[in-house]
Amino acid sequence: MRRAKVWLRGLSLMILSASLCGPLRAQDSRSLGLQTLVQPELNLMPVPANVRTGNGSLKIDAGFTVAFAGHSDARLNGAAERFVERLSKQTGLLMAMRPVNGTKATLVVHVDHDSKQVQELGEDESYVLEVSSNGGSVTAPNDLGALHGLQTFLQLVSVSPDGFVAPAITVKDTPRFPWRGLMIDAGRHFIPMEVLRRNIDGMEAVKMNVFHWHLSENQGFRVESRKFPKLHQMGSDGLYYTQDEIRGLIAYARERGIRVVPEFDLPGHSTAWFIGHPELASGPGPFTVERRWGVFDPAFDPTNEKVYKFLDEFIGEMAKLFPDHFFHVGGDEVNGKQWDANPKIQEFIRAHDLKGNAGLQLYFNKKLQGIVSKHGKSMVGWDEVLDPTLPKDIVIQSWRGQASLAEAAKQGYRGILSNGYYLDLGWSAARHYAVDPMGGAAANLTPEEKQRILGGEACMWSEYVNAENIDSRIWPRNAAIAERLWSPQEVRDPGWMYARMHVLSTQLEWLGLTHENYSTRMLRRIAGPASSEEFHALRTLADVVEPVKDYGREETASGPATSETPLNRVVDAIPLESRAAQELSEMVDKYVAAGCRDAATGAQIRAQLILWRDNDAKLQPLMQRSFLVKEVAGTSQDLAAIASAELAALDALEHGGNADEAWKAQQTAVVQQAQKPKGQLLLMPAPAVQKLIDAASTGGSCAAPKQ
Amino acid sequence: MRRAKVWLRGLSLMILSASLCGPLRAQDSRSLGLQTLVQPELNLMPVPANVRTGNGSLKIDAGFTVAFAGHSDARLNGAAERFVERLSKQTGLLMAMRPVNGTKATLVVHVDHDSKQVQELGEDESYVLEVSSNGGSVTAPNDLGALHGLQTFLQLVSVSPDGFVAPAITVKDTPRFPWRGLMIDAGRHFIPMEVLRRNIDGMEAVKMNVFHWHLSENQGFRVESRKFPKLHQMGSDGLYYTQDEIRGLIAYARERGIRVVPEFDLPGHSTAWFIGHPELASGPGPFTVERRWGVFDPAFDPTNEKVYKFLDEFIGEMAKLFPDHFFHVGGDEVNGKQWDANPKIQEFIRAHDLKGNAGLQLYFNKKLQGIVSKHGKSMVGWDEVLDPTLPKDIVIQSWRGQASLAEAAKQGYRGILSNGYYLDLGWSAARHYAVDPMGGAAANLTPEEKQRILGGEACMWSEYVNAENIDSRIWPRNAAIAERLWSPQEVRDPGWMYARMHVLSTQLEWLGLTHENYSTRMLRRIAGPASSEEFHALRTLADVVEPVKDYGREETASGPATSETPLNRVVDAIPLESRAAQELSEMVDKYVAAGCRDAATGAQIRAQLILWRDNDAKLQPLMQRSFLVKEVAGTSQDLAAIASAELAALDALEHGGNADEAWKAQQTAVVQQAQKPKGQLLLMPAPAVQKLIDAASTGGSCAAPKQ
Repeated sequence: MRRAKVWLRGLSLMILSASLCGPLRAQDSRSLGLQTLVQPELNLMPVPANVRTGNGSLKIDAGFTVAFAGHSDARLNGAAERFVERLSKQTGLLMAMRPVNGTKATLVVHVDHDSKQVQELGEDESYVLEVSSNGGSVTAPNDLGALHGLQTFLQLVSVSPDGFVAPAITVKDTPRFPWRGLMIDAGRHFIPMEVLRRNIDGMEAVKMNVFHWHLSENQGFRVESRKFPKLHQMGSDGLYYTQDEIRGLIAYARERGIRVVPEFDLPGHSTAWFIGHPELASGPGPFTVERRWGVFDPAFDPTNEKVYKFLDEFIGEMAKLFPDHFFHVGGDEVNGKQWDANPKIQEFIRAHDLKGNAGLQLYFNKKLQGIVSKHGKSMVGWDEVLDPTLPKDIVIQSWRGQASLAEAAKQGYRGILSNGYYLDLGWSAARHYAVDPMGGAAANLTPEEKQRILGGEACMWSEYVNAENIDSRIWPRNAAIAERLWSPQEVRDPGWMYARMHVLSTQLEWLGLTHENYSTRMLRRIAGPASSEEFHALRTLADVVEPVKDYGREETASGPATSETPLNRVVDAIPLESRAAQELSEMVDKYVAAGCRDAATGAQIRAQLILWRDNDAKLQPLMQRSFLVKEVAGTSQDLAAIASAELAALDALEHGGNADEAWKAQQTAVVQQAQKPKGQLLLMPAPAVQKLIDAASTGGSCAAPKQ
Repeated sequence: MRRAKVWLRGLSLMILSASLCGPLRAQDSRSLGLQTLVQPELNLMPVPANVRTGNGSLKIDAGFTVAFAGHSDARLNGAAERFVERLSKQTGLLMAMRPVNGTKATLVVHVDHDSKQVQELGEDESYVLEVSSNGGSVTAPNDLGALHGLQTFLQLVSVSPDGFVAPAITVKDTPRFPWRGLMIDAGRHFIPMEVLRRNIDGMEAVKMNVFHWHLSENQGFRVESRKFPKLHQMGSDGLYYTQDEIRGLIAYARERGIRVVPEFDLPGHSTAWFIGHPELASGPGPFTVERRWGVFDPAFDPTNEKVYKFLDEFIGEMAKLFPDHFFHVGGDEVNGKQWDANPKIQEFIRAHDLKGNAGLQLYFNKKLQGIVSKHGKSMVGWDEVLDPTLPKDIVIQSWRGQASLAEAAKQGYRGILSNGYYLDLGWSAARHYAVDPMGGAAANLTPEEKQRILGGEACMWSEYVNAENIDSRIWPRNAAIAERLWSPQEVRDPGWMYARMHVLSTQLEWLGLTHENYSTRMLRRIAGPASSEEFHALRTLADVVEPVKDYGREETASGPATSETPLNRVVDAIPLESRAAQELSEMVDKYVAAGCRDAATGAQIRAQLILWRDNDAKLQPLMQRSFLVKEVAGTSQDLAAIASAELAALDALEHGGNADEAWKAQQTAVVQQAQKPKGQLLLMPAPAVQKLIDAASTGGSCAAPKQ
């Protein structure tokens, strides 16, 4: 399920607010028995299952070598080469892969045996990593653990007073869940191959192991079909992956311990199929590539036996192309309008005594499951496909939440959670991080039922992302979800997570991901030729805003967005979490907690506010020159206004002042005005400003402290 | 000539200081008759030969199309596709190459005929670009002009209050010199293919047309030879270009209107050849890949007929691989030690009545020229190869300067200037920009002799660059050299050049060049995990320093650098020109010029100084944690010290004070101390600080203004 706005508002927002959106419980993992195991200064993400630190550290220099003792193969050799290359990038030391005797290398990798040729769900991914001042070792039963161990080693390496080092440590690690995925929607916006590759590199770094590739949509059919070439030729605007490219990506992912699960969404979300094959649809053609966003009418005709013959051939072709055992058929958001409008279909429903359109879709799903099964695969579908009459090997991917997953598990079905992991909603990393596949209703399952909850998947739906900014909408937040799916459940302190995530974020850029540097590049385009001061003013504003959350982008748009709408505005160019606003919030909390008597923090807050108050004037020249800067004029004024309001609160606190009810109402009105989204932007410092106004006002926690 | 430090200090520094290093003459090109032709707000670089601006502008939207009227071919079609892709990146608009009727496109390109299959020196590169509110056209006699015209159009496009636009304009353009090159030394540090490709993209953007590829050095032989595979197999550490890769790069360059001239340096700079072929050397082997920098003894044996047989076969192979008519044989810096030490060679010199080693090298050059000529090429060499007995088709590349070029021109030889264009010396763009191939002795040549001065080449010697930071050592400064070689000689105002270069620099990043964003990435590695404030402190220091200039890197090193020395220090991570220091300098000039009574500017200066003064304390935590930050501790203290000194000067000026001779001596000592390089860094604000101290002191221009 992606875009059913009506649906979401009717039902799932309630689910969300009940089960996921409560206040973050800032339980400190270190208070849960981990403090002796994991030192805060270790920047490992995901946190390993077991860590014991030692004394001393291993020096990393240009003489560093890595070698295999025991099993080795092409994948391991490739991994070692990439490892050395990354180590070289992380340190700036000139390193090369050199043949060395296994036992004499700096890092020795002991692998017992190969993992499966086609990577399988539930293979052993454990490893032991040991580092001492003399060297290191990774020990793993198979390739998968070795790959993970090498990634952990890379995260240990850091600059020190004496050069680059890895601390002495013993890590015994294994994942909590066997299915840890990232879905990328290549249907709505085509995502080029090199972008996918670098995101797979990122997945490897955080130990995710399933790349779910959403390949067909109303807006595009993205796979070359040799059996039915009209699918990609007519349904993709020329933007599709060739079978060679797909094989290349699957090999690329396998080298990194990652399975590739394809999704072809059926029977809805299927306009793009019908452009070349209108005979498969339930309504009359002709069809064209959809440019709008939303849920649309076209759907396969479940009453047409030729549809099943077609799908049998098509899935047969794809089952060979994609070796993974799981095959995703979507199954979500059929609005039924084409079925309602087609008398032949309605007659079929009556004749077969099906329960309306839902019954018809179940009829379709059963036949589809038979086809998928015939080609040796297990079917995966969104919640809607769940029905107790289907075989137990299917897997439910849940956008509805843990209750839905728990229900499936009780019925004997395996499931993966995506509710709470929708990256496109713009949530904070902390909010995703608080969502646990075993939370809510799932917590009450029996141990056997719990086994059926395989893990989860982050979902990157692509209405508002393209090749240019998709990295920034996935990273670094996806690392928080990856940790939730790998690390022990008790690891859940958001502050500690953020500290590690910021460090990881920088490391991810070394892999070629662009989530940090894209922003400057886009803002430069938005600004046009600009002086240092002018550009700095734009940067300052960009640093305190976030895009509207959830489906606010559509709600606040001046007109309907389409796949052709440029994604070149400030809202597209800014990170999803404002660190500057977070830092202000922390300063205000500290200041208020100290009874507003902490002069040093007060001075820090004041310095920040003066910069914000004066920023609007500095941004004026760019507003005159660039329509894309002009769009954020209102937000810029709001920033100046709330900064002034907070300065007034500070003045009242420091010098005494008339911070009575009328004053409070006036300042609060300023903040409330600023909290209305403008240019689809949220002004993130507003709550902290309000907090200080409240504290300063009559009856507030710091009211007139110096009187 | 690259590294002859002794040589350079003995002779060429005198030349440099006489002809190139004088104060920049800030002549305003707009006062030279161009002001009516080129509006300052047009950010074209290089400045075209003729520009006339019109009224209105052409709106750039997603419906933009480009088509050819007249001649078209695969290269032009490819250029149009790249053009649309770049336009899309520059605007964030979704654009695609669409077939349109020639005359109905937004931009119509009229090309009369194809250019030569193998691009030749001196082909017509002119074009006319016209833009009105209704559309645009590029008209050119051949492909080369069309390529240039498309680049000019891209530079015209900018954000405006009403969307993206190109202003109405007529450009009639043609280059001043036919040879406008960039040399990259792939011998000392291997430079990977993708780095070369993006630099060739950058060359196209600034209309350079020769990529000079320095392919063999003591430190590496970088080309696959199928005739003599031991050359690359034993002489490259495995870092070489395959012939397929080379053909690919030549095709890539041709598509962008760029010739590729290979250089194989003979008979010196040749250690890497002798590892596989010691029989060609003048001294006894065995040889190993050189790791140190400098001039070394190994040289080909000119007395050995087998050497010529070998070179005939080798050059024959390379002459086929590299289609360009010119073939560079180096010829520089033979120290003669192996020749002196070899009695057989000395006997040969006597027997043939040669004038010592120089005569022996001339003997070698003549035979070499015969071989090059036999394979259909014209020979290019550094100054040292010049001798009046050589045929007139050879070309001299001068590291010695215009006098040397002028002398060659008088003797009938063509030449290209590289003296003054050595990018590795760390000069400012303005200093390179002031160097003109027709300057100095060349100014007095006859028109016919002047014709022999073909242009120039920027040279990127690679002792202190690698794949990670080479872009930043080439760009954006190379654009200033490109403009010198393309634009009318009167275009020479450095302030105007910098304004345009800063805009271009951002555009170059859209091509994939990394000269701007690499710095943050390297500094993040240097810092290790850091808070926002800590990292900002490092950034602040990095923004005010530059690497030591000329050969200072070697002079100030604690030990000899080699090809294995890591390039991961602050000195490697900073841009070559400090904009922050430049901005301070401009503020101080403005302040002093106003008699130090400009309170607003004084306040700006003070705000900047306070940040600098306080920065050292903020950087302390990183110094404790990172050896790479610790290295710049002295510079950080110096920054605090000079900031304090300048604050004292400001105080004296604003509040009166005892700025007497003793005070001046004390403050000046602080500045002088800070001007000594530390960590191979120069603290760039120092001169502006001294200027304010001087102004404030007794007898200074602003002494006691408020008393």
